[in-house]
Amino acid sequence: MSELVGRYFDAAIAHLQRVRTEEAGSIEAAGALLAGAVAEGRRVFTFGSGHSSLAAQDVVYRAGGLVPVNLLDVPGMSGVTVMPAPLSSALERVSGLATTTLDLTPATAGDLLFVISLSGRQVMPVELAQYARGRGLTVIGVTSLAYPGEVPSAHPSGTYLKDHCDVVLDSKISVGDGELTHPAAETTFGPVSTIVTSALMQAVVASAVGRLADAAAAGTGPTPPLFRSGNVPGGTEWNAKQMADNADRVFYTY
Amino acid sequence: MSELVGRYFDAAIAHLQRVRTEEAGSIEAAGALLAGAVAEGRRVFTFGSGHSSLAAQDVVYRAGGLVPVNLLDVPGMSGVTVMPAPLSSALERVSGLATTTLDLTPATAGDLLFVISLSGRQVMPVELAQYARGRGLTVIGVTSLAYPGEVPSAHPSGTYLKDHCDVVLDSKISVGDGELTHPAAETTFGPVSTIVTSALMQAVVASAVGRLADAAAAGTGPTPPLFRSGNVPGGTEWNAKQMADNADRVFYTY
Repeated sequence: MSELVGRYFDAAIAHLQRVRTEEAGSIEAAGALLAGAVAEGRRVFTFGSGHSSLAAQDVVYRAGGLVPVNLLDVPGMSGVTVMPAPLSSALERVSGLATTTLDLTPATAGDLLFVISLSGRQVMPVELAQYARGRGLTVIGVTSLAYPGEVPSAHPSGTYLKDHCDVVLDSKISVGDGELTHPAAETTFGPVSTIVTSALMQAVVASAVGRLADAAAAGTGPTPPLFRSGNVPGGTEWNAKQMADNADRVFYTY
Repeated sequence: MSELVGRYFDAAIAHLQRVRTEEAGSIEAAGALLAGAVAEGRRVFTFGSGHSSLAAQDVVYRAGGLVPVNLLDVPGMSGVTVMPAPLSSALERVSGLATTTLDLTPATAGDLLFVISLSGRQVMPVELAQYARGRGLTVIGVTSLAYPGEVPSAHPSGTYLKDHCDVVLDSKISVGDGELTHPAAETTFGPVSTIVTSALMQAVVASAVGRLADAAAAGTGPTPPLFRSGNVPGGTEWNAKQMADNADRVFYTY
């Protein structure tokens, strides 16, 4: 194995070990909020822009994932499917998009919103989190607290995503999101943000499923609503029943 | 930290350690193909359906990523943004979509295609890889070799993605994609596939960047074309220049 590839895996693993230890409390706090929202029949949404959308999508309509988790999909912002690709970053700087988007969802006070933004400094995630909390939603932010100390906020208030959350999960990704260097490469490379952010989101879901299952075992709550893989026998039929059973808070199918 | 969350991180880390060791040769083989394609001015595409699209998107238009890597975006299949969400899985079973999609790209013999499919058993990834190789493209598959032994192929030939690739990266994800169990949960949960698949893709890119940078340092090749973060000073301008310099093989902007 080349030295760079070895260093890449070392960096990813070290980063996971670090958030495993240092974010344990935040993961449990977020897991408790998610379990509570599911148990109480609340609506749950996840949002991220550009590559931050990948971890948001990773917990939606997902084998081993909770059924009542919906993607807050803003056209042009979810991943890198928009043409031209820079439009995704440009939309993050447009004021008014967050409020318009949230107003068109059925989210109301007491519902739960995950906002994922690596830098946490752009207009969209700041405005979305701020507006959602103003409407009484509970907001969990997933962001890197390395950015606020090094890069100015692009929001007029000067605040960051972290300033508008009930719980913050710190991905601790370095500014620039590159773990590797090479003398003949003009910038850092080897980003680990998707790995770490996805792990944080999945860890929160695991915590929530555990809490719901504990309650179910104790007879104080329903069985956690989980998807199975569509690639195992009976999975598709199981999933269809799960979506039907949770139809009042599943917004990604008819 | 709850025991489940600890087990989730343990599983993710153990899985990364395993592919780091066992897939080292495949990662280097894929990295050499990617570096060669970039150095020779070839077109490079990545494809995945549903959640397998997340790792495909993770290496496109990406801080620390190679500029000439394009997403083969099939509407309704990239991530979980389509409504209804089950349409993404349904489209994977439609024969003819792969050939139609590839015919509408500028990809020709000698170009490079990454096909990501966790199960590797659906019509779309099998047909896409098979057709691409028939057209002379080089195909790198990222899939779990746990599936072919346990779940039948959905392709009429009975073959899997792995059977139509020049290099296969085995994510080794268990059938069902859940690392955790709980007596009161009706299915496994805690999926690590996005983490592991993203790590494999990023490791391949790191290997390729290293090879290109080595050649640049030796004076036998150009500097690797890398994106910077748009959230660091000068990043946006740097990225615009990179896209302009590689305009003949960048298909995600004007």
